[in-house]
Amino acid sequence: MWLNDTSDLVAALKLRGAQKVALQFPEGLKRQAAAYATALKSAGFDVLVSGDPCYGACDLALDTLALADVLVHFGHAPVDERQNVIFEPSRVDLAPAVLENALPFLHGENVCLVTTIQHVHRIPEMDAFLTSKGITVHVGDGSTRTPYRGQVLGCSFNAAKVPGAGTVLFVGTGLFHAIGIAIATRARVIALDPLTGIAQEVSGDTLLRRRFAVMEKARGAQSVGIIVSTKSGQQRLALAHYLRSLSPRATIITMREVSPDELLNLGFDCYVNTACPRLAYDDQVRFPVPVLSPQEFEIVCGVRTWDDYTIDEIP
Amino acid sequence: MWLNDTSDLVAALKLRGAQKVALQFPEGLKRQAAAYATALKSAGFDVLVSGDPCYGACDLALDTLALADVLVHFGHAPVDERQNVIFEPSRVDLAPAVLENALPFLHGENVCLVTTIQHVHRIPEMDAFLTSKGITVHVGDGSTRTPYRGQVLGCSFNAAKVPGAGTVLFVGTGLFHAIGIAIATRARVIALDPLTGIAQEVSGDTLLRRRFAVMEKARGAQSVGIIVSTKSGQQRLALAHYLRSLSPRATIITMREVSPDELLNLGFDCYVNTACPRLAYDDQVRFPVPVLSPQEFEIVCGVRTWDDYTIDEIP
Repeated sequence: MWLNDTSDLVAALKLRGAQKVALQFPEGLKRQAAAYATALKSAGFDVLVSGDPCYGACDLALDTLALADVLVHFGHAPVDERQNVIFEPSRVDLAPAVLENALPFLHGENVCLVTTIQHVHRIPEMDAFLTSKGITVHVGDGSTRTPYRGQVLGCSFNAAKVPGAGTVLFVGTGLFHAIGIAIATRARVIALDPLTGIAQEVSGDTLLRRRFAVMEKARGAQSVGIIVSTKSGQQRLALAHYLRSLSPRATIITMREVSPDELLNLGFDCYVNTACPRLAYDDQVRFPVPVLSPQEFEIVCGVRTWDDYTIDEIP
Repeated sequence: MWLNDTSDLVAALKLRGAQKVALQFPEGLKRQAAAYATALKSAGFDVLVSGDPCYGACDLALDTLALADVLVHFGHAPVDERQNVIFEPSRVDLAPAVLENALPFLHGENVCLVTTIQHVHRIPEMDAFLTSKGITVHVGDGSTRTPYRGQVLGCSFNAAKVPGAGTVLFVGTGLFHAIGIAIATRARVIALDPLTGIAQEVSGDTLLRRRFAVMEKARGAQSVGIIVSTKSGQQRLALAHYLRSLSPRATIITMREVSPDELLNLGFDCYVNTACPRLAYDDQVRFPVPVLSPQEFEIVCGVRTWDDYTIDEIP
C-alpha cells in the first residue's frame, strides 16, 4: 500500500537532481526498508538505508546523508530546518466519529484539541465534529518543533497551551503525551485512543510521585553525569553547561543512545538527561541509578522550588 | 594508579593549546572516566566524556571531538592517521617467564611471536626469553592498523604473516585472535594466556564448520542487507558496493552499532557484515538470521571457491 506513493517521492528526488538516496525509517516502519530500497533502485537511484535506531525527526541519520545526496526521513515531521532532507510523515487515518467516546468527558466546555503527527491531517474533521456537538474548539499553533496546528510531540506541548481552554483533548495512542500535557499545562486532560476508542481522564500525579522519589534517591550522589545527546535535534549543550555549573561533582557525558549498559559501565551515581526528555520519565525502571530531568536536578541543587516542578520540553 | 600518569597527559594537552578536552574509554576502562574528568577539570580543562560503546580505535568519538579541541582515546593504538587525537594505550604487564608454559608446544622451532596492544611493550623481553631457550624468534612488522612490531588486532593479523615461521605464538587473552591467525596463515598456532598461564594449540576447524553451516543457511535468502559501519575506522563503502553488485537482492544498510534488535526490525533474510569483522564470527549466536563475512558472501554468490575461504581482515 505504501508503495503506491513512490511516484511522488521519485519525482521529488528527480527535481532535486538526487542520485544517491539515503532512507531512514522509525522502528515501527523499518520493515518497509527493503521494499522501498527495491522500488527506488528500479527507478534508477543508488540507495542506502540507515539501520540505526530511530525514534523521531530529532534523530536524523546525518552520517548516512553524508554518503548520499538526499535523506528521506519517513514517519515524522521536521523538528528543525534541514537541507537535503525530505520528510515523509506517516498518516494513520481515523474516523472523526470515534470522538463520540470522549464527549461524556467534555461537558460542552472550551476544549483544546491536540494530536500526534500520524493524525494531524484529520484536525479539521475532528474540529468540525466537536463543534457540531456544541463544543468550542481551540486548535493551538505549533512551533518550530511541531510545524502543524494542533500537533504535539513527547518533548513539545506548545499546541496544548491555549489560554482559556480548561480541558485539553489529546487524540493519540499511549498516555505519555497526555500526562506531559497535564503537568505542563495544569489543565484537565482527556486522552482518546483513536484505535481502541478508549477515552479517559489523565493526571500527572502518579508520574510526579515517582519522580519525587527518584529525586530523593539522587540527593546523595557523589558523581553526576550530565548527558548530552549527539543526535541532531536533541543536543542541548548550553543547558548541559548550565547544569554542570550547579555542582562541582558533575561531568558532561556525550551519548548517542542512552542505554542502561553504558550508564552502568560509566559508573556515575546519578545522571541528568538533556537528551530526549522521555528517557528519564519512561525508562527509569530500566536504568541502574537515578536519571533526572534538568528541572529535577535544579530542585535537587536547590535552585528551583518543588512547587515549580515542571516537565522537560525542548523549545 | 592510572591517575599517576595525568601529568604527562596534561603537558601534552597544554602543548597542543587544548582547552576543551574530550575523553573516550573502551568498555573495560569506562569506570576511570569520572576520576580522569575530575583530574583534568582540576588542571583547568573543560572536559567532555564520550559515553557511547567503544571497542577499538576503529571507533573514535568524532562526534564528541567536534565539540572539543582534542580527543584523548584510552586503551588502544591508532588504526589510522587522525588529527587532534591523543592515543593513550593501556599497558598490562606480564612476566616473560610465563612463556615457560608455552615451551612444550614449541619444539625448538622457528616461532613468530605476536601479541595485543596491552602487552606489546614486552615484546623485547619475550623475544629474549624465547631466544634464551634456543628458539629462533621472528617478530613481524605491523601495518597502518597495527603500528607496533608483533602487534595483532582481531581484524589485522599482518604481524603473524612471517614466511618460514611454521608456528605462531600468540600471547594474549581469549582465543579469537589465535583462531583468526590459524585461518589467515594456515600455520600452527599456540595461544598463551599471560594471566592464567594456560597454553594451548588452537585450530580454526570449529569456527570453519560453524561458518559453513551459516553460509548454507544464507543460500536461500530473498533479501540481503550489506552492512556498512559509520564508525571512523570500520567504514568499507567500496567493498559494500562491490558486494552489492554480486546480487540484485542486496541493499546497503548503514549502522553504527550492529545490534540483533535492529537486524530483526529491518527484516532482511540475511546480512553481510563489512563493519568490524569479529561481529559475524563472534556474535552469530545473538543474531536472528545469518550474518556473513564478505568472503563468505562471495562463496555463496559463486565468485569464490570453498577452498579459498579466508578470514576477513581490514587492510
